[in-house]
Amino acid sequence: MPTTLTRTVSFFALHRLYRPEWSVERNREAFGALSDEPPHGHHYHCAVTVRGGPGGPADLLVDLGQLDRILREEVVEPFDGKYLNRDLPAFTRTLPTCEAMAEYFFRRIAPRLSPEATLERVRVSEDPTLYADCTGPA
Amino acid sequence: MPTTLTRTVSFFALHRLYRPEWSVERNREAFGALSDEPPHGHHYHCAVTVRGGPGGPADLLVDLGQLDRILREEVVEPFDGKYLNRDLPAFTRTLPTCEAMAEYFFRRIAPRLSPEATLERVRVSEDPTLYADCTGPA
Amino acid sequence: MPTTLTRTVSFFALHRLYRPEWSVERNREAFGALSDEPPHGHHYHCAVTVRGGPGGPADLLVDLGQLDRILREEVVEPFDGKYLNRDLPAFTRTLPTCEAMAEYFFRRIAPRLSPEATLERVRVSEDPTLYADCTGPA
Repeated sequence: MPTTLTRTVSFFALHRLYRPEWSVERNREAFGALSDEPPHGHHYHCAVTVRGGPGGPADLLVDLGQLDRILREEVVEPFDGKYLNRDLPAFTRTLPTCEAMAEYFFRRIAPRLSPEATLERVRVSEDPTLYADCTGPA
Repeated sequence: MPTTLTRTVSFFALHRLYRPEWSVERNREAFGALSDEPPHGHHYHCAVTVRGGPGGPADLLVDLGQLDRILREEVVEPFDGKYLNRDLPAFTRTLPTCEAMAEYFFRRIAPRLSPEATLERVRVSEDPTLYADCTGPA
Repeated sequence: MPTTLTRTVSFFALHRLYRPEWSVERNREAFGALSDEPPHGHHYHCAVTVRGGPGGPADLLVDLGQLDRILREEVVEPFDGKYLNRDLPAFTRTLPTCEAMAEYFFRRIAPRLSPEATLERVRVSEDPTLYADCTGPA
């Protein structure tokens, strides 16, 4: 039966919606107060959906120990407590929106899964009213 | 990469499950106490999933300012605080169930999005145990 | 319009990750403390998504009264308060993971729906960080 497993991790990070190639005024016009310094914080959730093959030492759908290690190394450790526009090289020139972060995590996590597992979706939410889903290359 | 953005808005409304073309008795048999006056209330959530094209003044996946304006005008303002069976012309003869509301919102929101954006899904929940998803015309 | 309805029920149950055909040591190596006695508990949620046909006495998308009866008989009553590895014959030799439980519920619920309704998905979560989705035979 086609079955997937979804694991969610959380982190707190700061960001602002500010394009460095634009003037302060143009940023303010496009994004309002969301462009201001100091940046504002979000409790992010990142939910990763994996389609298994049997794999891992315990012959489960997905090797959860491996998945948790990947999520810690690719999501929680590099992002928790950071000011994304300043501290993450991938987001100094790209706006750190939910959708950009979902695509970034997809690209980082997919190649690290064991060959039997497939990454189906990465969902990033910044608060209970907004999330982005990335389902990978078409 | 195929990416969507989902925005959720909330409102409180009253409804009852009562078909005006049926007798009180037949309504009671079909719906039990849910057919009674006075109506009962729900804290509804409406989650709208949009597939972008680049668009909007800030060149984001979805023009969130535009989406929020549409959701305010089509969902929150007309529905918040209303007795749906009595106050909403669309639901005086159609039962205001989650599924009927999801279809109604889909029809209202889809034509208002900018041409590059596609409405993928409208989800309406009336409480943590029940929601309906409408994915639009087949 | 293609519309689905999703109902969620909840139950509390105990389990451990322990394969009786393995030694205690091999279980401990594979699953760590999750293999230990006494078992540990989870507040499970089971969310069932049904695509309707018109049906049921009230001519709704889905006959909710029928669906709630099936969920009570197949999910809540047999699982609530149980030690899954010991009390549920289906899980004395199969690990009671979210993914195994989602597949089990799918097989039990699908044939009991009325002919116009289709079971689209069963989601089982054991806590806010982990869930499995079963979408039925390919």
